[in-house]
Amino acid sequence: METPKRGFASDNNSGVHPAIIKVLSDANNGHAIAYGDDPWTEKAKAKFKEIFGAQASIYFVFLGTAANVLSLKAITDSYHAIICADTAHINVDECGAPEKFTGCKLISVPSSVGKITVTAVVKHLHGFEFEHHTQPKVISITQATELGTLYTLEEIKALADLAHQYGMYLHVDGARIANAAVSLGVSFKEMITDTGVDILSFGGTKNGLMYGEAIVFLKEGLDNNFKYFRKQAMQLSSKMRYISAQFMAYLDQDLWKQSASHANRMAALLQKELQGIKGVTITQPVQANGVFAVIPKEIIPLLQKEFFFYVWDEHKNEVRWMTSWDTQEDDIKRFTALIRQLIK
Amino acid sequence: METPKRGFASDNNSGVHPAIIKVLSDANNGHAIAYGDDPWTEKAKAKFKEIFGAQASIYFVFLGTAANVLSLKAITDSYHAIICADTAHINVDECGAPEKFTGCKLISVPSSVGKITVTAVVKHLHGFEFEHHTQPKVISITQATELGTLYTLEEIKALADLAHQYGMYLHVDGARIANAAVSLGVSFKEMITDTGVDILSFGGTKNGLMYGEAIVFLKEGLDNNFKYFRKQAMQLSSKMRYISAQFMAYLDQDLWKQSASHANRMAALLQKELQGIKGVTITQPVQANGVFAVIPKEIIPLLQKEFFFYVWDEHKNEVRWMTSWDTQEDDIKRFTALIRQLIK
Amino acid sequence: METPKRGFASDNNSGVHPAIIKVLSDANNGHAIAYGDDPWTEKAKAKFKEIFGAQASIYFVFLGTAANVLSLKAITDSYHAIICADTAHINVDECGAPEKFTGCKLISVPSSVGKITVTAVVKHLHGFEFEHHTQPKVISITQATELGTLYTLEEIKALADLAHQYGMYLHVDGARIANAAVSLGVSFKEMITDTGVDILSFGGTKNGLMYGEAIVFLKEGLDNNFKYFRKQAMQLSSKMRYISAQFMAYLDQDLWKQSASHANRMAALLQKELQGIKGVTITQPVQANGVFAVIPKEIIPLLQKEFFFYVWDEHKNEVRWMTSWDTQEDDIKRFTALIRQLIK
Amino acid sequence: METPKRGFASDNNSGVHPAIIKVLSDANNGHAIAYGDDPWTEKAKAKFKEIFGAQASIYFVFLGTAANVLSLKAITDSYHAIICADTAHINVDECGAPEKFTGCKLISVPSSVGKITVTAVVKHLHGFEFEHHTQPKVISITQATELGTLYTLEEIKALADLAHQYGMYLHVDGARIANAAVSLGVSFKEMITDTGVDILSFGGTKNGLMYGEAIVFLKEGLDNNFKYFRKQAMQLSSKMRYISAQFMAYLDQDLWKQSASHANRMAALLQKELQGIKGVTITQPVQANGVFAVIPKEIIPLLQKEFFFYVWDEHKNEVRWMTSWDTQEDDIKRFTALIRQLIK
Repeated sequence: METPKRGFASDNNSGVHPAIIKVLSDANNGHAIAYGDDPWTEKAKAKFKEIFGAQASIYFVFLGTAANVLSLKAITDSYHAIICADTAHINVDECGAPEKFTGCKLISVPSSVGKITVTAVVKHLHGFEFEHHTQPKVISITQATELGTLYTLEEIKALADLAHQYGMYLHVDGARIANAAVSLGVSFKEMITDTGVDILSFGGTKNGLMYGEAIVFLKEGLDNNFKYFRKQAMQLSSKMRYISAQFMAYLDQDLWKQSASHANRMAALLQKELQGIKGVTITQPVQANGVFAVIPKEIIPLLQKEFFFYVWDEHKNEVRWMTSWDTQEDDIKRFTALIRQLIK
Repeated sequence: METPKRGFASDNNSGVHPAIIKVLSDANNGHAIAYGDDPWTEKAKAKFKEIFGAQASIYFVFLGTAANVLSLKAITDSYHAIICADTAHINVDECGAPEKFTGCKLISVPSSVGKITVTAVVKHLHGFEFEHHTQPKVISITQATELGTLYTLEEIKALADLAHQYGMYLHVDGARIANAAVSLGVSFKEMITDTGVDILSFGGTKNGLMYGEAIVFLKEGLDNNFKYFRKQAMQLSSKMRYISAQFMAYLDQDLWKQSASHANRMAALLQKELQGIKGVTITQPVQANGVFAVIPKEIIPLLQKEFFFYVWDEHKNEVRWMTSWDTQEDDIKRFTALIRQLIK
Repeated sequence: METPKRGFASDNNSGVHPAIIKVLSDANNGHAIAYGDDPWTEKAKAKFKEIFGAQASIYFVFLGTAANVLSLKAITDSYHAIICADTAHINVDECGAPEKFTGCKLISVPSSVGKITVTAVVKHLHGFEFEHHTQPKVISITQATELGTLYTLEEIKALADLAHQYGMYLHVDGARIANAAVSLGVSFKEMITDTGVDILSFGGTKNGLMYGEAIVFLKEGLDNNFKYFRKQAMQLSSKMRYISAQFMAYLDQDLWKQSASHANRMAALLQKELQGIKGVTITQPVQANGVFAVIPKEIIPLLQKEFFFYVWDEHKNEVRWMTSWDTQEDDIKRFTALIRQLIK
Repeated sequence: METPKRGFASDNNSGVHPAIIKVLSDANNGHAIAYGDDPWTEKAKAKFKEIFGAQASIYFVFLGTAANVLSLKAITDSYHAIICADTAHINVDECGAPEKFTGCKLISVPSSVGKITVTAVVKHLHGFEFEHHTQPKVISITQATELGTLYTLEEIKALADLAHQYGMYLHVDGARIANAAVSLGVSFKEMITDTGVDILSFGGTKNGLMYGEAIVFLKEGLDNNFKYFRKQAMQLSSKMRYISAQFMAYLDQDLWKQSASHANRMAALLQKELQGIKGVTITQPVQANGVFAVIPKEIIPLLQKEFFFYVWDEHKNEVRWMTSWDTQEDDIKRFTALIRQLIK
């Protein structure tokens, strides 16, 4: 098969970091007890605890949607409501998996640059004890957001405090959490544990892993009986060592940091190169590895032929360009050169 | 980490065939559209159609439980009943995932050597049109069975005919379908398509893949809208090429055949070596890659220390020994030598 | 027990029309086959068909929430989305029962005076065939709305046309459909069948029945296998004749019309009496049997002591006053007199 | 409509006791707060507490299937298993409602005369803490059973003790609990509270009520948040006073006792009259209000023409005859006379 081109469609379209391929091969050594009772899984979990605190507990699943849905299942009953941004992945990109598996209602809140605020959420915090209403139980945010933006630590803390004040939980969809941490220049612990987050979907696939994500419970007691839900949700990997080995490498060798930093730098470079191009308007703050822009409608298909990407909002001609661990400076240069040329 | 020993606990405890590691590395080449719209997936599906017939349609998922549950979901509504062996994986090893995701009732039928018969199933085929009863809709069998035994082609056809006579479907859990095919000396098409099976969970993980299984719809029209159920069930892989690449290698290069043949030969060898050991009674016909035996209770923990395996039935001291693509003749020799020594 | 006072809290707080008590007693005659195979049910269904057309099919359930949820279940799979007003009963007053039983996502659309428009709905009609998105399948409206307002026949038809254009269905929550029909001065057939509605929750409890509601399928083929869903949803009444007998009386003797007309007249009277009271602002068009008003905060508890009712929106001091088949002119006079007195 | 004949098909085919019709009429007095916050409901609950103990908590629902399903939901998570008789109503007569609403697996155990034993249940009490298995959490029995037989108090206690020993609960489906209590000559408290039952579906419809059943939690803490599940399960009655008023009359005036005693006496009379009829073999101990018998196949349709009833087991020509509060001695005499005549 010929080598496919790199584009800007999705960080999921990138391949796997070579270091990850290597650890998969290294882990391929003899027998290991299936379903997680193996030394790789033990070490990977220990690494997570080192990062997030000894009170954390960690469960591996296959994919990000499952990390989100199972996180929500762990802390809800079917009569609960989950409050999230209208743009949240759980709200618009998971085909109703949260509703199907948890039975809960999702209440979507208008967002700005992909973020929700205490003010917007609090409007939905009523009807407690009234059995006709679903009972608000979770606030769920995405960090970095689906629009490539970031919550500050203060904003996360404010939402965590709000949740706790109402006996609720704060969940973070961290599909791109590495990009958030390097951009904010903080540790995972500072961003998540210390702000009061209760449960985290910790992603890796979008940052160079092959498959596998982690659910991190930040507080003790939240994962009681959780193992049964993971199994029932069809997310218990038999040959789990191959997920765990990826996370060992990802976390141990700062692979997460290098890859995310690189992707973020490429997005910043793309933003920089786009500045001054007439007809291109960047629509969201570029804080992680995505650039959103309104561009002339007529150049979209021409551009897509050379560098594949998706239109985010057809009504506005807003497009989404994602960078990745494997984006090259030269990709950006050639891409922006082509834009300039097409716009002329 | 030190090299773990090979045991007989599960074909899931084996590692990944080196050829699979290689194709994962080969597939790690540039960008590919996520979620299955990539050339690897296209080729892997084409290969499946070559094997099962052009009318077949194929969907990849992460694991065997999901292949089963989604197969069942595709052909049921929540008021249906699914009839299976009391020993079926869907009945006893999936933590209620079939009930949770489909809403259906599972009706378990007493089995002999892991198999169910037309006579046993037909007793449950009543109450049709009676709204108080769940409506029987699927017969589900496992090939090779959970007890390492095989349905003959005639037996499969008889169950398929029975199902169709009642407007029902026949599902096959093929977690070890390769072991069945090589043991029966037939092609997948002869065993599945030609006997009238409607839907198949096609396994690979237990025969040397890292992760990933396939759902094969054998009849047209059964997979209408199925893609939504796969996504909602949290089984749509983003970097799907890495599943597809495994199946390309597995099917293209007869890797499935070599690996399964080897595992079966090792089970046969184990059976042969056990013959004549006093105190060891083989309890199920050895037709695939598993050997079930009653052994003296007192030697179980001693034996497990050297070669890990599971007790199948504690009341009877019946143990299960699984062989795999990577089992060595020497493993069998040393294992049976130890049994002989412990029994003395 | 002392006679409780009449208030304006809810048309559910009213008792049962004496004519209904009488038919329950009349139906209490000998044995009848349980679960609906009885002459009362046959006649009640025939009456519905007379009203809505011979193509209609009718199923009785216990309550309005079930009529809604089962209506939605009949025409959806779990990956579908249901679009409704933010104020819809299914969205805010059923404790997530629609999500739990159907698995679907509810997409709530901003409403004005309880109504949604083609323009507002059409914004959510995208993502078709894209498996990451829930697939829009139903538009659900309430007639009369939760705010006591009415869709015109043209508005209903426009929403039905929109739904059908996209391969979707239009569901009407008719908990107060009698109030709507008498207010619009049209027949049920003109309002529902002729506008193209696909499925209707036909309510009676809020208009003088004891219990029991009907699901009316307006098109053939929509109720295939529906009987199993009704049973599985715990909505198949054993002594069904007592529901059916109520509907026979309700529809045969124009009881529905008299009761709804009376309730609407009482709401109109209440509106009239409120006009000119300083400090009372009616907030929604009064088109059925509810009056919504902003009143001085301090009089609310004093007023509630004499005539019970609920605050609709605490932030705005907006209250809801419902009239019923048993509201008396004198109730209105004394109520408004008290308001005048308290405001002074 | 002409007066339908009384038959022996089902105690659900009987009408409503005249005393119940009367209290429905009496309760039809002015306004009452909907959804249970009314004086009738308060009194009915108090009466239940008087009977079962002050620690009990009571929730009304519409029907028996809902009482069972919601009882089970209250004490399970979706990964649990519920163990019951193969003949249990929850297993064969509820169209999979328990699986659909709870997500749990039902494990059916072979029964004798409708009853299960500690020995039979204990075989399924394994796999605890093993996430591949559903976790046994409930033993559910029916009293009186679906075959008109009774558990002794010792048998109930033994099953309750077994359940508690394993951290499980004992649920009793009491659709015909009144028939059981009068037959055993014990109080509800002795039969249920004192034996250690955890949760009870308390039926009334089969013993002369129009509709409505009660869920009785016998232990404190089991009903935490249960009100939300009832609402979400579509079982919260708006005009609840009409259910509560029925139970007030049913329990206050010993209506339950008179009606059940009468029905049981009629079954005993039927049994007596059948003795000595050649070709009629009674198949189950007659301990409540049902008689099961094998009769000549050819007389079944002739007999059904005059007195409607159901065939229980077509293979054996076993029929079920249920008596009720309104069965007359003369019905029995004419029925058995006809049998004698037909058999000749």
